[in-house]
Amino acid sequence: MQKIYIAGVGQTPVRENWEKSLKELAGDAALLALEDANLGYPEGIFVGNMMSGSANHQLQLGALLADWLGMHHREGFGLESACSSGAAAFRAALMAIASGELSSALVVGVEKMTDSPLAEITSSLATAADADLEGDFGVSFVALNALIMQRYMYEYGWKTSDFAAFSINAHANAVFNPNARFRKAISLSDYEHTGMVCEPINLLDASPVSDGAAALYLTAAPPTKDRRISVAASSAATDTISLQNRTNSLRLSAAEKSARIAYQQAGITPREIGLFEYHDAFSIMAALSLEAAGFCDPGQAPRLANDGSIALNGRIPVATMGGLKARGHPVGATGLYQLVEVALQLRGEAGQTQVEAARWGMAQNIGGSGSNIITHILHQG
Amino acid sequence: MQKIYIAGVGQTPVRENWEKSLKELAGDAALLALEDANLGYPEGIFVGNMMSGSANHQLQLGALLADWLGMHHREGFGLESACSSGAAAFRAALMAIASGELSSALVVGVEKMTDSPLAEITSSLATAADADLEGDFGVSFVALNALIMQRYMYEYGWKTSDFAAFSINAHANAVFNPNARFRKAISLSDYEHTGMVCEPINLLDASPVSDGAAALYLTAAPPTKDRRISVAASSAATDTISLQNRTNSLRLSAAEKSARIAYQQAGITPREIGLFEYHDAFSIMAALSLEAAGFCDPGQAPRLANDGSIALNGRIPVATMGGLKARGHPVGATGLYQLVEVALQLRGEAGQTQVEAARWGMAQNIGGSGSNIITHILHQG
Repeated sequence: MQKIYIAGVGQTPVRENWEKSLKELAGDAALLALEDANLGYPEGIFVGNMMSGSANHQLQLGALLADWLGMHHREGFGLESACSSGAAAFRAALMAIASGELSSALVVGVEKMTDSPLAEITSSLATAADADLEGDFGVSFVALNALIMQRYMYEYGWKTSDFAAFSINAHANAVFNPNARFRKAISLSDYEHTGMVCEPINLLDASPVSDGAAALYLTAAPPTKDRRISVAASSAATDTISLQNRTNSLRLSAAEKSARIAYQQAGITPREIGLFEYHDAFSIMAALSLEAAGFCDPGQAPRLANDGSIALNGRIPVATMGGLKARGHPVGATGLYQLVEVALQLRGEAGQTQVEAARWGMAQNIGGSGSNIITHILHQG
Repeated sequence: MQKIYIAGVGQTPVRENWEKSLKELAGDAALLALEDANLGYPEGIFVGNMMSGSANHQLQLGALLADWLGMHHREGFGLESACSSGAAAFRAALMAIASGELSSALVVGVEKMTDSPLAEITSSLATAADADLEGDFGVSFVALNALIMQRYMYEYGWKTSDFAAFSINAHANAVFNPNARFRKAISLSDYEHTGMVCEPINLLDASPVSDGAAALYLTAAPPTKDRRISVAASSAATDTISLQNRTNSLRLSAAEKSARIAYQQAGITPREIGLFEYHDAFSIMAALSLEAAGFCDPGQAPRLANDGSIALNGRIPVATMGGLKARGHPVGATGLYQLVEVALQLRGEAGQTQVEAARWGMAQNIGGSGSNIITHILHQG
């Protein structure tokens, strides 16, 4: 694929946001990205969202935002792949530009989850599972992740407290991110004394239902030199949608495939990755992601979390602005928050959580319990 | 954009289908297209759907179908632009192939509407309007179309019975389509004596809520000569999402733009178009589509319908297999039914409604009340 650049980024604070409609929230992030890029209107808009039809009685987000932003008559579509909808929109926009149909595009991810009762949102999230095999039987996503975590602990001998480090790291970084949902450090004791959601997943293993929007401005023309962040790799892969059909529920084989292809496209190995925005919707997904992306052997990720490797000055910094856990997880927007954060890091604009001398950054967005995984690598230059 | 071919097509009968789940219904159309193409699995899958999240408790359709079809680990996404979601998925797949990321793709459109109470479906359809300005105030799509039709009659002096010819033509053609929902001819008297839905739109002006799925197999490599149907043009444009913000509610300006660009891309004029699968969700949309695509002046479409121009042997045959009106309108699938029908016509496989000597065929899919319009022109050769 031809070289495509990120010329602008925008994000709204992740929180309960009852003052804005879905359109206004997405529009805010889009306007920030347009302002940041300062290149005028792009030729199209791609919107990542999962559940606005049920949660906000609003679909048709491509035309809706094109209209709201004043991008008269320009094309726009919505992309959906559950919690990886944001990265799906990003990848669709990349392909649109690489095809020559568009020379620039705005990618917006939005999810507004806190307007609805939590039971409805839990039910909407379950539409990412197979309705015939999982969803209609009442299996929620926290339950699916609890099954995986239980099996992981059994197979590799880890205790629940060994997973605390993922969450402690995310919260430590979120303190410095003005857009994070929970800007509050937590301790091992906090983790050990919080409530249980679905054994063994406790409250501090789980990312929060949130409202938020993030946006990126993509262009085929190289921006000015200090903004020259390019997309070095884009790769997507699927796996069985239901957990029960998977040969090995402890391996994210779609993540392994998409990461492997992404490294090939970028011409690098995991060693060159300066930071990794992983999809820590639950601590167990953080662990499996690190393993699937080649940062450690299967079953070894809690060691990386506990020996400091994932800290800002460690071997592979993760969740540098709070991750899904503490920045928050507005599902359709998450993949674009990740990419905005990688871009800001590569631009050297990550503030107090700036990773030193990172030239390559990776973001990996997961839909379902590992069934749709999209990996992007960004490059400074 | 490089030349891309349609190597296979598939469709399920449009009807109330309570025996199959959404996945099975979509899978049936996909398997027919795979069999028709006989080229093995493609590299990715793009799924057009509007309301499966609310109507079927099932999202994540890309991964779901990749899994169900046995396309292990291949990428898949869902595309949404309300009633033009099918054509949006088709366009996204074209751009993916033209970008070089994929060499082949399956495009599937599916909607399963009859499992839910009609009031819920009416509400889900209204998510294609602007929730802040229209949807949340209870405006349904039939009401929006009734406003347009009322204005059209006032402005140009047509009577309701002048619109009957659109519906009579669609039903006449549907008789010969084994996949059509209503294989029954209707008369002017039937039209004049049917029930009113929302004045001036009566039951025979409105397309039926339906279940259905259609699929196409796209490939960059030319298929064998008798199957050489290529995509000559693909163009999308948006308009204001709410009717009240439109300067002129009787002009589909997004349709005008996307048709104009499509003709340019194909290097032809409306005169070369051998058949036009238009988006006759309501008779008034049939009229506005003919005008926007350049087949007559604004306000003149009912004349075309009444003087035989839109019949199979007329100047511009439309709805050759029944159209949305009589074949049925499973919204996310409709854009792909249209493209399947154009492809079958160009292959000379349209049976008793075969249009003679058509070398170019156009399909135009409309999302919302004209807010997201996607035009494709297919070519024999």
